[in-house]
Amino acid sequence: MYELWYWPSLPGRGEFPRLALEAGGIPYRDMAREAGEEGFAALEADMDRTRGDPPFAPPYLIADGIVIGQAANILLFLGERHGLAPSNPAGRLWVHQCQLTIADMVTEAHDTHHPVSMGDYYEDQKTEAKRRAADFRDARIPKFLGWFDRILAQRGDWLAGGGWSYADLSLFHLIAGLRHAFPRRMATVARDVPRVIALHDRVAALPALADYLASERRLRFNQEGIFRHYPELDGE
Amino acid sequence: MYELWYWPSLPGRGEFPRLALEAGGIPYRDMAREAGEEGFAALEADMDRTRGDPPFAPPYLIADGIVIGQAANILLFLGERHGLAPSNPAGRLWVHQCQLTIADMVTEAHDTHHPVSMGDYYEDQKTEAKRRAADFRDARIPKFLGWFDRILAQRGDWLAGGGWSYADLSLFHLIAGLRHAFPRRMATVARDVPRVIALHDRVAALPALADYLASERRLRFNQEGIFRHYPELDGE
Repeated sequence: MYELWYWPSLPGRGEFPRLALEAGGIPYRDMAREAGEEGFAALEADMDRTRGDPPFAPPYLIADGIVIGQAANILLFLGERHGLAPSNPAGRLWVHQCQLTIADMVTEAHDTHHPVSMGDYYEDQKTEAKRRAADFRDARIPKFLGWFDRILAQRGDWLAGGGWSYADLSLFHLIAGLRHAFPRRMATVARDVPRVIALHDRVAALPALADYLASERRLRFNQEGIFRHYPELDGE
Repeated sequence: MYELWYWPSLPGRGEFPRLALEAGGIPYRDMAREAGEEGFAALEADMDRTRGDPPFAPPYLIADGIVIGQAANILLFLGERHGLAPSNPAGRLWVHQCQLTIADMVTEAHDTHHPVSMGDYYEDQKTEAKRRAADFRDARIPKFLGWFDRILAQRGDWLAGGGWSYADLSLFHLIAGLRHAFPRRMATVARDVPRVIALHDRVAALPALADYLASERRLRFNQEGIFRHYPELDGE
């Protein structure tokens, strides 16, 4: 059975492979969360093990003895192995391109509250965060979400056309995160990207995800993660 | 023949697929550069074309009528098609993981001079840049390069073991860029990551790259690109 390793207390980048595993009905163990209060220590100990293929950072998936790091790389693997993406070369690369672009936006969303130092607290970089968040709200959110909306205008309900792929699941989580972090801005932007919002709702209604989304396995957004709600960083 | 599209005046993220194309001896056209002074306009016009698979940003490669965006995705394609990465599943995913981690560091290197606003000039965010660059120099460079050095300690001359892959070419360019941008800091860090430096030198000496590296096709680092030398952002 696959072993997924990620920080146990926040959805973060672990949520992207987790959603694919859940929607695909793929059995897996959520290792750090299984360890309960020892989860952080268990993850750190596992990362410190000497390996020829050490992960740089969580999430990583251990599958058939292989350590697969980088969320988009895990999804590439799951997509091919479990049919969560088109199997033709063009569709496979297209879905991965969408995923990598989602990953870029996730990094930028994180950097709104940590623009100058990853190791310091938000409270120590609030001034810089305000400036970065304004740029993200005004320039980057419309650019990224506008791109996804244009794709859906041409391809229909899903990013690859046809059925859902792992990139659709990821876009759902990205939108959920942005709405949590920037509710006022997203209320405004939603009017310009109706197809992206509809995709979010379509994923939320997938029968394959119903159990998971209603369960405690789905971690809530909080002030430790990538998507944090600081009212001072939001704006219309 | 493949068509590579990227901004014509800087190496940027276009250099990663370009190095793979050159080292692999793969014929390609460098479209915006072929257009000479009209290169920027040609790229922008091509990006604005209505397509079902629009690129979000350059670089992108047009291959067999497919538009492949995201540098790491182009390399995934070239690696599989032209043998620039192992063909076994574990090796293929491992090299892609290395590439995605290089891409993460490239983004962080860029953000040292643009920490709070992508659209504004460096001169308008110098104070924030100093703080972000200090964090990058002190925490991030050792963390990233230390990871690559540990891999090479176990795997030998190349990131995947065996022969070179596209990720080795990319790590070469990353090191070259970091040395350009942060010469003082890299002189210090080099002592702790000798295997990474040796890999850089090994790629620089590849016969397959000799013509390219000596040619005018190889763009020099400059103050428009990702890796910029601002002495005030460097330090031991």
